[in-house]
Formats: sequence, structure tokens, C-alpha cells
Amino acid sequence: MKVQGIHHRTVWLEHKAVVMIDQVRLPHEFRLVRLPTHADTAQAIAGMTVRGAGAIGATAGFGMAQGVLEASGEAFQDYLEVVAQRLRGTRPTAQNLFYAVNRVLDAARSGFDAGGQEEAKRRAVEEAQRIADEDAEACRRIGEHGAPLIAPGARISTHCNAGWLAFVDWGSALSPIYVAHRQGKKPFVWVDETRPRLQGSRLTAWELSQEGIPFRILCDGATASIMARGEVDLAIVGADRIAANGDVANKIGTYPLALAAREAGVPFYVAAPSSTIDEACSSGTHIPIERRSADEVLWISGQTESGATTRVRVAPPDAQAETPAFDVTPAHLISGIITEFGLIEATSESIARVVQERHASYHHRQATDQ
Amino acid sequence: MKVQGIHHRTVWLEHKAVVMIDQVRLPHEFRLVRLPTHADTAQAIAGMTVRGAGAIGATAGFGMAQGVLEASGEAFQDYLEVVAQRLRGTRPTAQNLFYAVNRVLDAARSGFDAGGQEEAKRRAVEEAQRIADEDAEACRRIGEHGAPLIAPGARISTHCNAGWLAFVDWGSALSPIYVAHRQGKKPFVWVDETRPRLQGSRLTAWELSQEGIPFRILCDGATASIMARGEVDLAIVGADRIAANGDVANKIGTYPLALAAREAGVPFYVAAPSSTIDEACSSGTHIPIERRSADEVLWISGQTESGATTRVRVAPPDAQAETPAFDVTPAHLISGIITEFGLIEATSESIARVVQERHASYHHRQATDQ
Repeated sequence: MKVQGIHHRTVWLEHKAVVMIDQVRLPHEFRLVRLPTHADTAQAIAGMTVRGAGAIGATAGFGMAQGVLEASGEAFQDYLEVVAQRLRGTRPTAQNLFYAVNRVLDAARSGFDAGGQEEAKRRAVEEAQRIADEDAEACRRIGEHGAPLIAPGARISTHCNAGWLAFVDWGSALSPIYVAHRQGKKPFVWVDETRPRLQGSRLTAWELSQEGIPFRILCDGATASIMARGEVDLAIVGADRIAANGDVANKIGTYPLALAAREAGVPFYVAAPSSTIDEACSSGTHIPIERRSADEVLWISGQTESGATTRVRVAPPDAQAETPAFDVTPAHLISGIITEFGLIEATSESIARVVQERHASYHHRQATDQ
Repeated sequence: MKVQGIHHRTVWLEHKAVVMIDQVRLPHEFRLVRLPTHADTAQAIAGMTVRGAGAIGATAGFGMAQGVLEASGEAFQDYLEVVAQRLRGTRPTAQNLFYAVNRVLDAARSGFDAGGQEEAKRRAVEEAQRIADEDAEACRRIGEHGAPLIAPGARISTHCNAGWLAFVDWGSALSPIYVAHRQGKKPFVWVDETRPRLQGSRLTAWELSQEGIPFRILCDGATASIMARGEVDLAIVGADRIAANGDVANKIGTYPLALAAREAGVPFYVAAPSSTIDEACSSGTHIPIERRSADEVLWISGQTESGATTRVRVAPPDAQAETPAFDVTPAHLISGIITEFGLIEATSESIARVVQERHASYHHRQATDQ
């Protein structure tokens, strides 16, 4: 998507270096970082220079490819294992990360078996690029499937950042909005600031601003009354994990937004690539909820009037905080799930069908490759 | 209530000076400010050194009494008018402020007519003190009426600061918790941080900490899932205005909390002195909702690690925010309203009865005085 009018992806490979947008500095500074080695890339994932499921997956894939490009000599295959282990250790709960590392590692191994080190390098880079392209393509299709839900002039509520920064391009929840905007529908977005880490204020607001889409930021507690007074036409949020029954885990604050939407008669959509579905998880009660550091609530980071980045404490010294990172929105509150295969109902049957399509599509690709 | 183990009120009169807790500096610094003249007191109200309906009312009453003490000579009565006008101009929407200024002004005038300047001064100070005492007493009674709702070990959710800092003593929503705590019931409090101004993190957390009541701070979007997982036994919030039909305007974020409480089967109480009832307002849709500066959302103030107070920006430079200060919780979501006259239902009939009791009590006091 656009940054200062120029198209960017979140992360890409340039020769042997990974280049990414430094998300820690947004929205105050737009800066690219160049990571010369796979170790630098691993460090960037761990330090959250890049975040968001799709973006982490793509970065890990590129990092693995970097490792293959670095390998040489007799220890070639051993080195690949070391690289994979280092990347896997960066964000231990990120499913996309393991998936991407394994795909690139497998490609490199099969290349090595077929044609030695050069073929391994060629296939690793190709596979990493394919993972990134698949992510961008899935998100673009989510945008096309979701855009018809957006009427001209629609006012859309969203939570957290499920935009292109969280993926390689387009994003999930924001993708239908970007497509609708390009179709000339003039959408308007209500952005939940999304405490504690304020991804709404920091990242979603920045993305929308760069694309020229009008928006306003709301404190998370304000959106319900904006809905109640009839100023929201639909809500679209992302998902961190979707259970087999259609329950959705997403950034903390999503569930009360869904309750407010139902009360106000506002359709509530979840947008996510099918890779977000965890078919092994029967319902939302089985999704483990990560707890974050209390400091994320007790301290807030930002930029001072003089432009310095600092954090300020907003609670008494002895205060404790409870910090669940995600909540679960039950399927019955969800009007539909927008996937790259189309808009589906949040039901076991529909979820199962999408999982089948995903498998079929993957097997189709594998068959075509051989 | 207690500060560092010593009982304090929010504001009081000491000879000719108003003394108050500087609420702008909390929770990082506990400091009293001494305001030698009514003009200083007016400035303190306008600058929000004191905030909260009851506390503003009591401060305005003391400020008016200060003005009467300052007056002398031939211009005595003219000076009182000047003082009243200055105080009325500080917070134009604060109902308690007008009420308190007028009561003290009337007392001074009747004293002047009955016995000259000295009698005017005596009656003004007496009336200002009575307003503060009435506020403290109404809040204490709210605590006694509300405490039976709190079972031993109960986990109570609250929003914003409806504690003693918002009144003269005890508070509204927190008063039942303070009483239950003193009864040995060991209550636990879930404190909504309450964006944008973070009165939960800053003030409620500080109050509870000073009283030794255990609590945890939650981002506003997190409370719904804490309720859903069965960790909240009841919710008690304050009110900024109660309509004749039982609809309640309170700090933004109260309404989604009420929705989450209903969904989880958690009783949802409002605690407020009967003076909060606006019987001229037929329903919540007629309550005007103040909009605050967007800076309250886009910037956050706090204390840096080195102890300096500063504000940091958390959104892109061109971002806009929508900032309703209050929302309306419809009466049907409210389990009961705790007033100084007891626990009532949020219905037109019950509200009308409390208004009658309030009038009767006021007339009784007036008759006793004469």
C-alpha cells in the first residue's frame, strides 16, 4: 500500500538483505531498516520491528532464505538447521512463523538433493517470495470479497491494526476498505485506539492517512455510544485465531465491540486469511489467551512535543494491572467471516468447507510445482 | 478518607483560605494547595485542580463564603455579586456549582438583612460548611445502603473515578466498597483505566491503594472478557446525570460496560446522591453530551522514569479524534440505583419518589433552621 504516495510492502528481500518498515517508530517516523543477515532479521522479529501474523510469517520466510544464501561449504546443511532454530525462537507463539520457516527449509533441502547448494539457494528464495506473494494475494482477495459489503459513504468501525502493516500488503480488516476506497465509494473509518498498545492510533490511523481515507480515532469505550447513535454502518475486525466452530480470538476489546454492534443492529464482520483457522481448536474456550506485561497498561509510550520518544507512567507506583492480550468473540455475534475464498458464515460447516478449500488449493499448488 | 493513613476531605475551609488536594498531580504527588482568596479558588475550579460534581459544588460554596469574608464597607453587597459571577463562570455546565454558589449567596444576603456584615459572614461560612457536610453525609449513606450488595470476597468492577476525590468524602460508586472493606468483607476491585483522561488509573487506583483495598487496573476493552470468564460479581459506577426515567449519563465507556455485565449476568449498579437526578430531563436522549478536546485522545500525560511530568503524542500528526465525554446507559440495563435514601429501581416511579424525599428533606431542614 501507499506511503507518501509510493507503493510499499511491509517486508521484502533485496539481494541478500531483508528490508522492512520499522513499525516501532510509526506513526512518528517512517523508516526502512535493512537487515544484512538472518541473525539481524531474527532480532527484528523478536524486538517487534515487524509484528502481525502475516508480516511475521513472510519475514521469517525471508530470514530463512537469507540463512540459505549465507550457507556454504561442508557445513551447508547443518547451518540451515541453526538458522531455522534461531528464527523459531523469536516469537514462540506465532504459528505463521513456524509454517514459513519450515516451508523454506523444506524447499532448500529438496533443492540441495536435486541440484546441490545453488539449487537449494534458488528454491529457498523462490519459496520465501512465494509465501510473501501468497499472503499479499490472500489479503487482496479478502478485499475483493469484502468490498461489496461496503455501501457508498459507509462508516466502518475497526479495532486494532489488521491493515497491511500486519501482513505483507493490503491487510485483512482494512483490505475491503482499501478496495472500496479505490472503487470510489468514499468510506469513512472509526478507528478504536486499541489500548494497551494503541495499534489503532499508531498504525491503523497512519495507514489510513497514507491512503487518504478519512477517519477518526475513538477511545475503545466510546465506540458503543457512536454505534448507539446510528453513526456506524458496519464493523470489520481481524482475527488472531478462528476456532472450528467460528469463535474468534482477536485483540482485547473486540468482544465488547461485537456486543455493542449487536445491540445497535450493526453487522459485525471478521476478515482473515484461511490460515488463521485452527481447525484443531473446537471452540473459543480452548484458545489460550496470552497475558502481556502489566507495564503495557501502566506506562504509555509516545513522542513529546520536542520530538523525543519516551514513556510516561499513568498509575500509582504500587498499582497492578491485568493484561489479557486477546478476547474471544462467540460465533453467534459474528455476521460473517471474510476469507480469501469468499464471505462465509461463522459456523462449523462453513469453516470446515474453507479448510477443505485451503487444503485443496495447497495440494493443487504442490502438484503444479512438480 | 485516608491518605498515608490520615483522614482527609477533598476540600475544606481554614480561616479565610480554601485548602484542597491538588488532583492534577495525583497519583504521582500528593499535595495540598492553599487558596487565599475566592479568585484563587475560582481559578482552581477552572483549572481542574478539583473535579467531580460533589467536590466542585463544595469548593464553589467555600469560594463564595471566602468572597463574603473578603467583602467590606459600602460596596459589600456589590462585591458578593462580583464573586458569585466569577465562580459561576468557571465550569459552565456543572449544576452543583450554581446550586452551591446560590445557597451561600442567599445565606449571606439574609444574614446581611438580619444583622449586617458580620451576620452575613457568619451565615455564609455556616452554609458553605453545611453544603460540604451534606455531600459527605449523602455519600456515607450511599455506602451504607450499598454495602449489603457486596458479599464477602466480592469482586467489583468500576469505571472512572466516583470515589471520594469526586465528592467531599466517601464518594458514590466507591463508598459501598469502602464500607464493605471496613466491615471486613475483603472486597477486590477491577478498575477500568477509563480513557481518555485515565481517572481510573490515576485517581481510583490511588484512592484504593491509600485505603489498602486490593485492585487491578484493566484497559477499558478488557473488562468484558473478565466478566465473561466469571471473575466479576457486580459492577458499581457513578453518574453525572440521571434522567427521570432512570437512564444514566456517566463517563464514556459506562454503556459498553453495562452491555457486557448483562451478557455475563453481572448485576450493574449506579451509585449517586439524589442531587444527580435531573427530573426535568425525561430520558437519556435529552441529556446533552459534552465533547472534549481531541488532544485528550491524541496525547497522554504522565510521569517519565526520571519523575518529570510530560505528555506524549500517540497518533499521526494529521489524525482527528471524536471525544464524547459521557455516554448514556439505558435504564433497562441498570440493576438498581444506590442513593442516600436507599437502593431504588431505575424506573420513573422510583426516581419520582426519591425526588419527593429530597424535596421533603430540604424543606424539613429549612423549617428547622427558622
